[in-house]
Amino acid sequence: MKVVVIGANGTIGRAVGEQLALRHEIVKVGKTSGDYQVDMADIGSVHALFDKVGKVDAVAIAAGEVHFGPLAEITPEQFNVGLRHKLMGQINVALAAQQYLEDDGSITLVSGILSDEPIRYGVNASTVNAAIEGFVRAAAIELPRGLRINAVNPTLLQESVASYGPYFIGFETVPASRVALAYAKSVDGLQTGKVYRVW
Amino acid sequence: MKVVVIGANGTIGRAVGEQLALRHEIVKVGKTSGDYQVDMADIGSVHALFDKVGKVDAVAIAAGEVHFGPLAEITPEQFNVGLRHKLMGQINVALAAQQYLEDDGSITLVSGILSDEPIRYGVNASTVNAAIEGFVRAAAIELPRGLRINAVNPTLLQESVASYGPYFIGFETVPASRVALAYAKSVDGLQTGKVYRVW
Repeated sequence: MKVVVIGANGTIGRAVGEQLALRHEIVKVGKTSGDYQVDMADIGSVHALFDKVGKVDAVAIAAGEVHFGPLAEITPEQFNVGLRHKLMGQINVALAAQQYLEDDGSITLVSGILSDEPIRYGVNASTVNAAIEGFVRAAAIELPRGLRINAVNPTLLQESVASYGPYFIGFETVPASRVALAYAKSVDGLQTGKVYRVW
Repeated sequence: MKVVVIGANGTIGRAVGEQLALRHEIVKVGKTSGDYQVDMADIGSVHALFDKVGKVDAVAIAAGEVHFGPLAEITPEQFNVGLRHKLMGQINVALAAQQYLEDDGSITLVSGILSDEPIRYGVNASTVNAAIEGFVRAAAIELPRGLRINAVNPTLLQESVASYGPYFIGFETVPASRVALAYAKSVDGLQTGKVYRVW
């Protein structure tokens, strides 16, 4: 299969690329790095990406910015960071991918444990992650031609403890390689509308 | 208690007003009707509302537009209808309410059964409803001064079968008066971070 990995240069994206490259051809996409570049928040940029890459069998996303900050101070503009990037960015890719995926192709999005386990400063992430899972449940039942969609919901990565550990005290961590297995289950499997928790 | 009901003239809002008026003073707010008007999607309009109404003990929302349409055709602009109105509209009210609520006051938002039970044309609603519930879980743990926040998640209303019934074949319905009880549980109770399903 030909698989587009968006966010291929991130901690999860690199692990996903390695895992999927065991069986598939990988097209690496990033905001500024990779074989191709995309701004997921811009639907025109997303269509331009697929126009260049052509037909693919799977799209896997491991990208999307959110705002971290206290509820008492967060502004609608800051809240929109997560809505425009991690949420609408991934939804833009999913909406566009409907036209570029081969029959029985798949879309894999990323949410995160804050969907269910909120932390201080995490309200934007919790909202966005829950939204992504609602999108996946609904999109799965409308997709045509055997197309599938799932989400991977990782906890804090072992590789990210140095940067984010202080915000996630008490959370068990997983290596990115375990998260990548959930992407493989989505890409290589037959399930759809699922949220794969890697906690 | 003094309770602001936003969307007071809708089917749920009227039932909420009747239920809460048994014990509380109700301030009815609508987009164009009620004692005061607000455009929830505009944070300036939300602050102007609270500046006029003054300190309150509870805010209950039964309002918020989403887009209904096929996944194959939905555009980012259409998707943003639900994000700006039902999602950010309610979040704007919650963010502003932090400053205007009396100690131990409450915020009650509305999601809906499509969060968990998707239907044809419902992808925007499923996404938004799930997001609202993620927001509530996260906001609840950061709110200061004993402030609480919950969401009410109704199934199709009996009163709405004539308009929306064909999209919800097989769904059990509830009267708006039952949904209003969940709002009362949120306003008069002590729980926080909950999603009250009325299915």
